This record gives sequence, structure tokens and C-alpha cells, in this order.
Amino acid sequence: MNTLLDAALQGDRLSLSRLISMVENGHPETGELMGRVFPRTGKARTIGITGPPGVGKSTLAGAMTAGYRAAGLKVGIVAVDPSSPFSGGAMLGDRLRMQRWATDEGVFIRSLATRGHPGGLSPAARDVTRLLDAAGFEVILVETVGAGQSEVEIMEVVQTVVVVMAPGLGDDIQAQKAGILEIADVLVVNKSDRPDAGNLARQLEAMLDLAPAQPSWRPPVVVAAAQEGKGLEEVIKACGDHWNWLSAGGRLQARLSRRIESEIASLIGRIAAAELVDFAKRAGDWEAVVRAVTERRTEPRVAADQLWEQFCCAGRGNGSPGPRGG
Amino acid sequence: MNTLLDAALQGDRLSLSRLISMVENGHPETGELMGRVFPRTGKARTIGITGPPGVGKSTLAGAMTAGYRAAGLKVGIVAVDPSSPFSGGAMLGDRLRMQRWATDEGVFIRSLATRGHPGGLSPAARDVTRLLDAAGFEVILVETVGAGQSEVEIMEVVQTVVVVMAPGLGDDIQAQKAGILEIADVLVVNKSDRPDAGNLARQLEAMLDLAPAQPSWRPPVVVAAAQEGKGLEEVIKACGDHWNWLSAGGRLQARLSRRIESEIASLIGRIAAAELVDFAKRAGDWEAVVRAVTERRTEPRVAADQLWEQFCCAGRGNGSPGPRGG
Repeated sequence: MNTLLDAALQGDRLSLSRLISMVENGHPETGELMGRVFPRTGKARTIGITGPPGVGKSTLAGAMTAGYRAAGLKVGIVAVDPSSPFSGGAMLGDRLRMQRWATDEGVFIRSLATRGHPGGLSPAARDVTRLLDAAGFEVILVETVGAGQSEVEIMEVVQTVVVVMAPGLGDDIQAQKAGILEIADVLVVNKSDRPDAGNLARQLEAMLDLAPAQPSWRPPVVVAAAQEGKGLEEVIKACGDHWNWLSAGGRLQARLSRRIESEIASLIGRIAAAELVDFAKRAGDWEAVVRAVTERRTEPRVAADQLWEQFCCAGRGNGSPGPRGG
Repeated sequence: MNTLLDAALQGDRLSLSRLISMVENGHPETGELMGRVFPRTGKARTIGITGPPGVGKSTLAGAMTAGYRAAGLKVGIVAVDPSSPFSGGAMLGDRLRMQRWATDEGVFIRSLATRGHPGGLSPAARDVTRLLDAAGFEVILVETVGAGQSEVEIMEVVQTVVVVMAPGLGDDIQAQKAGILEIADVLVVNKSDRPDAGNLARQLEAMLDLAPAQPSWRPPVVVAAAQEGKGLEEVIKACGDHWNWLSAGGRLQARLSRRIESEIASLIGRIAAAELVDFAKRAGDWEAVVRAVTERRTEPRVAADQLWEQFCCAGRGNGSPGPRGG
């Protein structure tokens, strides 16, 4: 693993790929690996690209990649969108278009399957983003469909969230707008050649008027046609503006702290769940508790509370102050 | 709350609605409520309906509802699909079609927003399903988009998972097939009037030949056109067959046990995360740990492990055996 990591940090793509696979599959050495990777992170700018299927997220990601490459920046792409050409879905034409990056050493594309991650998709995306960061990729684009809750959680991984919309996709989008607006730092109305693009942009502005998402940052609404490269500079500029805003006044630090807090809390939850189940099994309680719940004699929350109490009491003598601070 | 519950159990729909809202919003009395609800559950048959957007899941759910109603069964529908007419998305026509149930006391429709559930969407869906079960709904249909991980988790709530596909939806579906097949108990090829419906059915059969999902149950592939009511009896029969198979030889009990185990483990994780963060804050450690991680001096997993060790040690004297079974 150390040899792989050294090679990956030197720019060896195959080694980087293998490390990502380790992380993706929850390899037992993942913790050790990330322990070595983590101190080397924090240099990359991370941008999420999300939105409903069919709005052209991948096309925008491709166009932004070209833009950043033109500026000499190394770009990593993490695709967790089942319909993305980066992830192997979507149309053949899209996938062919992706091949332009096949020979560019400054671009690294990796897709994550939307299922089968032992610890959840969002921790996997976070680790892969950190690996790319440590490996020297300066801009990391994380592409995901903005439908479900786990997809929204993935956006917690990035610094700037670009939400992509397109005119003429019907009621579905309307229903999703409110939720999606909450997480947007930059709004892109793509496919601006379609009728109603101007209307959609005005609607979004009106919604922003009603619900100011963040105190001193109003997400700009950028009208673009990624396929034709229209509005692309504006998108990249809007991301840069957001980065500058974040960097000022300790905002980036504050945002990072909040995310680290929730990351640590969720890791603790995973450790505790595994330890307590193990503890209850060794104490011979687990089976009886599960049976009581399946027979509907005990409610699951009550069972969890009881196991937690037993665990906390097991470590201390009667009446002595325990971890719950009695 | 007790008055509301009594009324809901007597069939009062407004009270039931209010209780569902409590659960959905993570009301502090949710635990107490579910403690009273839980012993009254276990009578309903729960069926999940999932699949990619646009395959006609809601139409199928509506047609199945009509079928079960004709058999005199009370039907609850839980929609967690942002594009479902039950959830307020989708086309106006679909939504109008839903109004047929507005005056039927034997049908209760409830949608869950795909965001903003404090404890996650899948626990909320589970509690709502239990409420409907206790309130006397005999068949509960849970509709969700089968794209992301949280949507797949929701299918853990039900006994029978119906995966809906449709011909002619392009490569996207192909990419999703493998993952979706893993969770299917019944496969429906909907929109059978379209060309290639037969092809898709044969492809699915071929995939099932290659990857037998479950030892003694092979998911039947049913060709249907829900809009026209075609194949509907076969879908309902396939669900019934699966139910009979589950009920035989203790399979239902075994499946329930596995799910209860993972439910308890995840509840323990939530309790532990909250308690430990609280414990670390009271001990004055939390801020320093978070700072060490944001400054990249400590890797998040290491921080979580350390906090866990501290918590476990706090309850016991030096060297005495603690909960970790030293």
C-alpha cells in the first residue's frame, strides 16, 4: 500500500486507480491509507455539479474541464451519477466525446458506483476526492444526480455547489427546485438555446429573492449552453467568485469545521454500532433483543436505548459516575 | 398524542395525517408514539415499487391499488419519489388521475419529501409504513425512484420489492440494471405496447440466468401495460406468490430478523454519535479535536477512534475490565 501511495503521489495513474479501488471496496487498510493521505490534502478546489437527469451536467463538466485545462490546471472528475458518461451510462456519443481526455495526463476521471459502498456513498466520494487532492489535482469536479438524499449529502464533500437546470423538462424539475436551491452556490441554466431559458432564469432569481440561502452570498444565475461553450467563462468566473467569497473572513474554515464535525460524528456512530453489537453478542444479549423486537414486544428505539445503557454501565461499578456524566 | 393515536386507530384520517407529520418532522414524542404503534404492526403486506424515472411506477401503483381495492383490501401508499404524482411531481394528467382515490376511505396516500428528514429518509418511511399498518391498511405500497443509495435502502422497509422497467429508455437503464436486479423480488416490464418489450424481458431473464439472486426464489419477469390494465393480474399474482414463498419455511421471519438487526445497529449508531459528541463537549475536548482535523493534523477516522476510546475509558477505573471486554 505504501509503495502504491508513493507512486500515486509521484503521478502514477495506475497506482492511483488501485488506491481508489481499495477505498471504494472498503479495503481493511483504508483507514491507514487515508491517515497517510489526509495531511497532504487541502490544496484542491472542489466543485460539485448536480441537478436533475438530462440537464447536461456531464457536458458542463467536460466544458469546465477544458476551461481549467486551458488555464494549466490539473483536473480530477469524480462521477457518482448513474446516467453520466463518466460513469459509463448515457449515450454512446457522450462517451465518445469523453475520449478526448484519454491521452491527457492532466485529467483523471473516476466513477463511483451508486451502490455497494460498505460505509455509504458520501464517505467514499470524500475519500476519493482526498486521494485526488493529495495526488496533485488542483480542481476536482464531483458530478451527481440531484434527486435523492445521498446525492445531496455528496455535495457536502465539495466547497462550491453548482446546480444545473434546463428549460422544458417539465413539472418534475419544479418539484425539485426548492430543495436544490438550498444547496446551490452557483445556478446554471443550461441549454439556453431552448425557449423558456430566460423564463427559467427569471423564476430562479425570483425564488432567490424570496429565500436568501446564505447571508452574504447570493448564488448567481448563469445562462449557458455548455455544448456550444456559451456562458462557460461566466460559470468558471462564478465558481471563482464563490471561492474568493469563501476564502474571505474565515468562511472556508467555518464551513470546513462544520463538515468535519458531522464527519466525525458519523464515524463515531459507525464505530459504536459495530462495537455495541459485538458487545451484546459476547454478553449473549443480542439474539434475545432481536427476538423481542421481531416479536413486537420491544420497539426498536427502546431496544437500542437499552443496549446503549447496558454498554455504558458495563464499564463502571455500581453508582460510580459513568460516561453519561451521572 | 395519545388522543390522536386512538382516533387514528379508529380510522380517523386527519389524526393519522397529523401523526405522520410528527414522525416526518422528527417530533420529540416520535419515540413514544412508535412505542405504542409498534405492537400493533405486522398485519400489513408491504410492497415496494421502484425503478428508473419514466417507467410508469405510479401508474402501476395506481392500477395495483385498484386491484387490491376490488378484492376489498385497504391500501396505503407511501410515495418517496420526487417525480411521482402521489408526491406532487409529475404531469398534471397523472395528478388528476390520482383524484379517483380522494373519496375512497379505503385508500390513504402519503408522500414523503426526499429531503430534510432529521434521521434519514429510510427510518421515516419505516415509521410511516408502521403507522399505516397499525391503522389497519392491509396492503402498503412504497413507491420510490431506484437511483440512489437511500432509495435502495427504503426498499429494506418492505417485504416484496417490485422493480419496474420499460423498453426504449436508453443506456441509462442498462447501467442501472445490475444494481436493481439484486433487490428485485418481482420484475415488471411495463409499457409492453412499445417495441422491444419482449427483448427487454428476454434480457432480464438472461441476466437472472447468470446471477441467481436468491437461493430458492427466481424473480418472475411480468410483461405489463399498467395504463391499459394489461398484465396487472399477473403482477398481483407474482406479489402473492412471493409472499407465499416468504411465509413458508420461516423465510419471512429470517428476513425480518436481519432487518431488525440492521435497524437496531443504526439506531445505536445515532444514539452513540449524539452522546459522544455531547460527552466530548462537556469534557472540553470536542473543539480541539475538530481543530486538529480541520488543520489536517489528525485524520477523521483517527479522531473518531480516539473519542470513542476516551468515552469507553471514562466509565471505569484504571485497568478494570471495560465494555470493550479487555
